Amino acid sequence: MPKTIEVTELILRDAHQSLMATRMAMEDMVPACEDIDNAGYWSVECWGGATFDSCIRFLNEDPWERLRTFRKLLPKSRLQMLLRGQNLLGYRHYEDTVVDRFVEKAAENGMDVFRTFDALNDIRNVRQAIKAVKRAGKHAQGTICYTVSPLHTVTGYVEMAEQLVDLGCQSICIKDMAALLKPQPAYDIVRAIKEACGEEIRIHVHVHATTGVTLVSLMKAIEAGADCVDTAISSLSLGPGHNPTESLVEMLEGTPYITRLDKSRLVKIKDYFAKIRPRYQEFLSNITGVETEIFDSQIPGGMISNMESQLKQQGAAHRIKEVLAEVPNVRKDAGYPPLVTPSSQIVGTQAVFNVMMGRYKVLTGEFADLMLGYYGATLGPRDNEVVQLAAKQAKKDSITRRPADLLKPEWEELRSSALSLKGCNGSDEDVLTYAMFPQVAPKFFSTRDEGPKNLGKDPAAAKPAAPAAPGADAGKGPVTTTISYDVKLNGKTHKVTVAPSA
Amino acid sequence: MPKTIEVTELILRDAHQSLMATRMAMEDMVPACEDIDNAGYWSVECWGGATFDSCIRFLNEDPWERLRTFRKLLPKSRLQMLLRGQNLLGYRHYEDTVVDRFVEKAAENGMDVFRTFDALNDIRNVRQAIKAVKRAGKHAQGTICYTVSPLHTVTGYVEMAEQLVDLGCQSICIKDMAALLKPQPAYDIVRAIKEACGEEIRIHVHVHATTGVTLVSLMKAIEAGADCVDTAISSLSLGPGHNPTESLVEMLEGTPYITRLDKSRLVKIKDYFAKIRPRYQEFLSNITGVETEIFDSQIPGGMISNMESQLKQQGAAHRIKEVLAEVPNVRKDAGYPPLVTPSSQIVGTQAVFNVMMGRYKVLTGEFADLMLGYYGATLGPRDNEVVQLAAKQAKKDSITRRPADLLKPEWEELRSSALSLKGCNGSDEDVLTYAMFPQVAPKFFSTRDEGPKNLGKDPAAAKPAAPAAPGADAGKGPVTTTISYDVKLNGKTHKVTVAPSA
Repeated sequence: MPKTIEVTELILRDAHQSLMATRMAMEDMVPACEDIDNAGYWSVECWGGATFDSCIRFLNEDPWERLRTFRKLLPKSRLQMLLRGQNLLGYRHYEDTVVDRFVEKAAENGMDVFRTFDALNDIRNVRQAIKAVKRAGKHAQGTICYTVSPLHTVTGYVEMAEQLVDLGCQSICIKDMAALLKPQPAYDIVRAIKEACGEEIRIHVHVHATTGVTLVSLMKAIEAGADCVDTAISSLSLGPGHNPTESLVEMLEGTPYITRLDKSRLVKIKDYFAKIRPRYQEFLSNITGVETEIFDSQIPGGMISNMESQLKQQGAAHRIKEVLAEVPNVRKDAGYPPLVTPSSQIVGTQAVFNVMMGRYKVLTGEFADLMLGYYGATLGPRDNEVVQLAAKQAKKDSITRRPADLLKPEWEELRSSALSLKGCNGSDEDVLTYAMFPQVAPKFFSTRDEGPKNLGKDPAAAKPAAPAAPGADAGKGPVTTTISYDVKLNGKTHKVTVAPSA
Repeated sequence: MPKTIEVTELILRDAHQSLMATRMAMEDMVPACEDIDNAGYWSVECWGGATFDSCIRFLNEDPWERLRTFRKLLPKSRLQMLLRGQNLLGYRHYEDTVVDRFVEKAAENGMDVFRTFDALNDIRNVRQAIKAVKRAGKHAQGTICYTVSPLHTVTGYVEMAEQLVDLGCQSICIKDMAALLKPQPAYDIVRAIKEACGEEIRIHVHVHATTGVTLVSLMKAIEAGADCVDTAISSLSLGPGHNPTESLVEMLEGTPYITRLDKSRLVKIKDYFAKIRPRYQEFLSNITGVETEIFDSQIPGGMISNMESQLKQQGAAHRIKEVLAEVPNVRKDAGYPPLVTPSSQIVGTQAVFNVMMGRYKVLTGEFADLMLGYYGATLGPRDNEVVQLAAKQAKKDSITRRPADLLKPEWEELRSSALSLKGCNGSDEDVLTYAMFPQVAPKFFSTRDEGPKNLGKDPAAAKPAAPAAPGADAGKGPVTTTISYDVKLNGKTHKVTVAPSA
């Protein structure tokens, strides 16, 4: 009897986040739901990540309503979301009550599986969310962000997995957001976790396709005992996205593994999104091939284009190679954080500063916070000299406590601020929307009644697209926390912006 | 000690044949040769397939001169070509003397490795060429075309491998031109051949990337003992092309296997062709994703678009699904040939005829020849009723002999015809060019002095490309044997063209 390998379908969340800047309108997903619901997936990732932000920022769509609609249209499916631990779906740490409330409300509106991660792999930043998921009786999936450094070891990942199991997680996800997970480490990590935590502990593997090797990594993870892997239907796959669902099914034929996916449903889903995809031409990633240089630089493609545009603004585009060479130094000084939003932007921008103005002459506020522990703990020690500089510049001390421990109860204040906004409906859901996006929510509340905007365009009516510009802003989530700095140094003003890439 | 896995680089032949219709000019390959020569490849595929045809048909370039140039620019490398057995690089069977002469001349001009195949896997069609390669002291690589049918078994492939070894082949290539080779059969076939023929028999594996699973198949083939795999540098890879060379290198990290490729050279080669690629925008394949439906239809993507345009010409585009369903029937009736040029065109066009005019009401001349054995033997028995129809229509008997046995000595006649042409330089090379392309060679000889034409265009000067039309003529070799039929049936004229897809 072959072992059944389960599959999480990413088309409704990470696939369009990675390939079309999270712009897909709910309207364009609805017609595929019946086939998705009946295709035999273990779960359907459909919420969280950047979708919440994109809904209110670009699509005038209520993300909570989106969730309820998925619940109705996918009655047989486990709905799955990506949750940034103590950051929820926003970009700062929230006080525990807000975290609890968010998880409660997401569960109440239909969410089943909460994939919870922290960009620094600081387990203290996911603990509260995981507890809340357990309390709601839902599936808590603890997540390990995969990265490569001299300090990251199989043993270290196993220890993190054990801690997540101790927190009560029903499954462990190995999340490889930058397509760095090669076949042999995929095998080694999955096997070691199974051996340490027990064969019955479910392991899910999430990889991107950018480097071209990760379908092989999924094969090896499966051979090592992985229970579920993430893929996206082929018509919205590859490049900075994910491996194609259909390829996974075919890959396993004749092996001791099988999926329970219905190929005729997959064809329908594929054909459907093949028609939808060209409607979002202007948002589509230009990257369709593979990028293996990421293995050396560790900088995801989207981040490189960000740094290029930062450099261009300063007339220093030619210095990109110096910046790329500086990134690993800055990452080392910061204690080897995984490079994922927001750490990738923080490290990348500091590398730009270092090249343009001299090493650590000026620190961004975010980099100072990272060095001082305000994002949490990193695996490696942070460079002491740079920590001193950060403390001096930011005029605050470094911390070793969990960042959210510094926060005071904030729900009531958030609630009264939200309720004072025109168009706020007074629900806890609206308060949470405001809490996560205080700059965007007011406008969204006031225009919500106008109904969703679909940014897709009939490709026949659209003008032919210009050839792809190299380094274009592609494969990204909505750019949400763009901060511009005017930095004066020796009488010269430098304009630098920091913007998330994914 | 990890085992070294050798690599054949396809960029100079199959990569641009599969992705840019074989249009790359020699001029655009020259600057990359030094890096290619020093990157550590086992061989560099750079000649044969459709490149010869494309040189004289589109590029006004002498293919023999191209070979001599490669010999000069790649002094450390084994040069490799793809040879269609008794068809050489043309589209009919040649008498043995012509085959001998071609191999001699190719060896003399610098070719080292002759990968020799027959579309039907009829070993009689490769025997003469393999003997000639051995006589010239060069590397004879016997090739198995991989396909899937109820009759194709691991045992059958092993038997073919044994026969190729008996012919004196120094290596065996498993050639998967349609990306049908899944990981488990890749493992099983390689292992079984090694066990039957000896572990010292070199096995090379050639796969395309179309279905998205074949990098995994290469991994499994390597685990089973494969010695060398084919890849293409990443900037001209994937889609109907091949797996990226760099991804192969990275995939093996930490495994018991290693390549001896120089990553810094690979980056240079990649960057170089990334600049060249946009110059051929108008020829580039539209297919960048994966196509897994090929596993069911067995029809390569290029063939589907051919059939679509055949149907459109008859105002019957809506009948494509019937035609796709008919292809497996026709293939079965023809004894399950692998679908590769020319069998894919022959079977596909007959399927169109069957749907439009009724099953086997009209046979194409080529299909009749296939049914009567004039292309060689197929693995399965051919349907007797259809064979009778073919004999009646073609007014000739079926044969069981090797097709080339019917041919009379033809060198002298070819030679005198060639020498009578304006611009023919009297060399055996020119006679061979004429022998293979009697319709195209005369014009080429007469314009050869004008020098090569580079069809690449500065993308900045070119107009933005229109969005890709579905089913466009992509990923193909030069369309070389297009034959138009006017078929009258019940007083109605049907116009049907047959054209090779690869």
